[in-house]
Amino acid sequence: MSATSSTFRAIDVIRKKRDGMELSRDEIEGLVDAYTKGNIPDYQVSAWLMAVVLRGMSRPETAALTDAMLHSGEVLDLSSIAARKVDKHSTGGVGDKTSLVLAPLVAAAGIAVPMISGRGLGHTGGTLDKLESIPGFNVNLSVANFRRFLETCGCAMIGQTAEIAPADRKLYALRDVTGTVESPYLICASIMSKKLAEGIDALVLDVKTGAGAFMKTEKDAAFLAELMVETGQRMGKQVVALITDMDQPLGNMIGNSLEVIEVIEVLRGKGPEDLRQLCLELAAWMLHLGGIAKTVADGKHQSEKLISSGKALEKFRQMIDLQGGDPRVIDDAARLPQSHHTMSVVSAKAGFISSMQCEQIGTACVILGGGRERKEDSVDPSVGIVLHNKVGDAVALGEPFATIYFNAEDRALRAKQLIESSCQVADAAPSTQRPLIHRIIANSGDKN
Amino acid sequence: MSATSSTFRAIDVIRKKRDGMELSRDEIEGLVDAYTKGNIPDYQVSAWLMAVVLRGMSRPETAALTDAMLHSGEVLDLSSIAARKVDKHSTGGVGDKTSLVLAPLVAAAGIAVPMISGRGLGHTGGTLDKLESIPGFNVNLSVANFRRFLETCGCAMIGQTAEIAPADRKLYALRDVTGTVESPYLICASIMSKKLAEGIDALVLDVKTGAGAFMKTEKDAAFLAELMVETGQRMGKQVVALITDMDQPLGNMIGNSLEVIEVIEVLRGKGPEDLRQLCLELAAWMLHLGGIAKTVADGKHQSEKLISSGKALEKFRQMIDLQGGDPRVIDDAARLPQSHHTMSVVSAKAGFISSMQCEQIGTACVILGGGRERKEDSVDPSVGIVLHNKVGDAVALGEPFATIYFNAEDRALRAKQLIESSCQVADAAPSTQRPLIHRIIANSGDKN
Repeated sequence: MSATSSTFRAIDVIRKKRDGMELSRDEIEGLVDAYTKGNIPDYQVSAWLMAVVLRGMSRPETAALTDAMLHSGEVLDLSSIAARKVDKHSTGGVGDKTSLVLAPLVAAAGIAVPMISGRGLGHTGGTLDKLESIPGFNVNLSVANFRRFLETCGCAMIGQTAEIAPADRKLYALRDVTGTVESPYLICASIMSKKLAEGIDALVLDVKTGAGAFMKTEKDAAFLAELMVETGQRMGKQVVALITDMDQPLGNMIGNSLEVIEVIEVLRGKGPEDLRQLCLELAAWMLHLGGIAKTVADGKHQSEKLISSGKALEKFRQMIDLQGGDPRVIDDAARLPQSHHTMSVVSAKAGFISSMQCEQIGTACVILGGGRERKEDSVDPSVGIVLHNKVGDAVALGEPFATIYFNAEDRALRAKQLIESSCQVADAAPSTQRPLIHRIIANSGDKN
Repeated sequence: MSATSSTFRAIDVIRKKRDGMELSRDEIEGLVDAYTKGNIPDYQVSAWLMAVVLRGMSRPETAALTDAMLHSGEVLDLSSIAARKVDKHSTGGVGDKTSLVLAPLVAAAGIAVPMISGRGLGHTGGTLDKLESIPGFNVNLSVANFRRFLETCGCAMIGQTAEIAPADRKLYALRDVTGTVESPYLICASIMSKKLAEGIDALVLDVKTGAGAFMKTEKDAAFLAELMVETGQRMGKQVVALITDMDQPLGNMIGNSLEVIEVIEVLRGKGPEDLRQLCLELAAWMLHLGGIAKTVADGKHQSEKLISSGKALEKFRQMIDLQGGDPRVIDDAARLPQSHHTMSVVSAKAGFISSMQCEQIGTACVILGGGRERKEDSVDPSVGIVLHNKVGDAVALGEPFATIYFNAEDRALRAKQLIESSCQVADAAPSTQRPLIHRIIANSGDKN
């Protein structure tokens, strides 16, 4: 900390931000440091957070906040690993299981992927919950084991540790109860501080847009994406953001075991086209930023080859094995937790599916027990939803367009209602289709 | 409380105000009620307060907040007193001792003046501190005695009780440490809730403007004044606001005993012209709103007569006596606490005084021991400053333009430096003079 921190006064920093002035790096560091140490009370920080929500932050302020939160805890030292370290982060959606494909796929190319992920909350799923549906899989590794597995396998997937970005954990809990979550500046600092604490060289961001995303409009998604890319650049990291579609679920399967099955399909070169294409695009950028592919097109080509050769799937098997999971699930999906019952959801009219409301489908999965309403809830890994049709597909009257995997009938009936109301069927096929990738925002030094 | 309060969720009210929407009366009542009862934490209320500072409030919201704060505690029932009850409130300044003149003067006209006042903090003085410089004067009356003295004498002056507007006390303490004091809506609700809890029929507001006032510009003062007048009107009270000058101290004396001496001078028909004129204007409006004077001009005329007849001074004597003070101070100022030493402040050049910085002069009085830097500080009633010249007056080189009354020489020397630097002397007399009363803002039903 600099000399000015000794005279840090929270009230001055609150007033300055309230009045729309730019805070210095020292002032932001002072606030984050004092809050992390418990030297200033919640009520001062929540007033400051609301001032940030309503006044915004400059790019230097956002970078300073990210940096202060990053350095509030441990920054992993992965210098013992020779390979370049690249990670991917998604802002969250329904059916988004790309992380489970990307970690082994990109590691198979010779890049280290130190992936620290979260759990599901509300209508969006979480990577850790999906991994834990694999019997025995341990996401709670020590930093020493995380580093060792990364060295051995090239990828490792764990949960947040108490040592990483404690300021973010404390700030996020306060934002959650004070109406100060919805600020791109605070979202950027939260995401980037945690990701950069992984000790990575480069980062690919998957910023979702659409009805099922936190950022509903492409404009809002692009603003957040640009903010994160610039913040990464200011902190000396290569960052690229893909703005991708989350107006309907990604892939066909929603639910923890089911999503692992779909991941294995993609790693076998099969699986639904939207999921497969997004994984290849994200992997291509990770290979490019990781210095393995000279161009993104080359990165995509290499990724396709790593899948068709079976190397990506073998890497997934190796990772599962190292982290204590049962690798036989890859060849025998019946070894994953399975629901006791299934139920079809049929179309009430003939026509073309014109929309599928992500949030309702995600919520249907939560109702089945596959997600969390509150942080303390436990998750049933076996339940979920398989979509047989997606937006634009033709459906006949009475045709089953989805199957519910469930263990409790009353929950299944509630989920069925939600899924029915989530899908709109029109007489004509939609004239336009939303693109899978809306826009790519890269550092000035990067080329597509 | 309405039925909606049972489902009150602070986070929804915070988000709504954050997003610039208008809160309902139920939502505002719910928030104030829950906070007063300790059912919602400081950190949620401070986030809401910051949203109010930056988003503002509508007139109905401001009235609802005032009403909720007013009804968070006891509203005095003074219905046993037949006379109309009228009070005055000032937003604070340096040398402002009008309350001590007005209470007996207006009571002498047959109006009841139930005055609940505060203590000095920072560069501004407080009515209670001034009263307590009168030996024996007790500002801590029970509500029963307050009512009894009002019945007997027509006026009584006390401090805030724990029963009155507890929501304001709690909110003010939080605003003080979260940078959320500076909002006209919150200032309005704070002032009006406390004043209307006195059980008054009408209120005259003295909103100060100028370098020594909280509202530096006439525009800001007028905005606050209009807000308070309209809020009073919405709550069924007659309210008028006078926007008066606080670009230099009011009157010539600053300091607790000294200000009592100046009050007695005004009640004798003497004293400095600015103080005397402001007291007569404020009294005129109080008499008019109290139904004693048909016009404000008539109110001023009656007030002058109550002074020249000695009735106002006799009322002051009666009030001092009832509240346990030594009424002999009126005829023998030496019975007030007196400082041991005096020191002159002389002009460093010949010319005309072009400005006197109120805040510096107020702070000089605090340095002498006559005011408080922190709430817990005690006050020396004997010290202070007498100004022999005001803005516009000619001064000769070396002429004493102020006298410091002090007990500690080191403090006196620091105060002297501040007073010297607070006064600017120009070669020519100022071409314009700031008016004593800038503007009068009245309910639509009132006539000047």
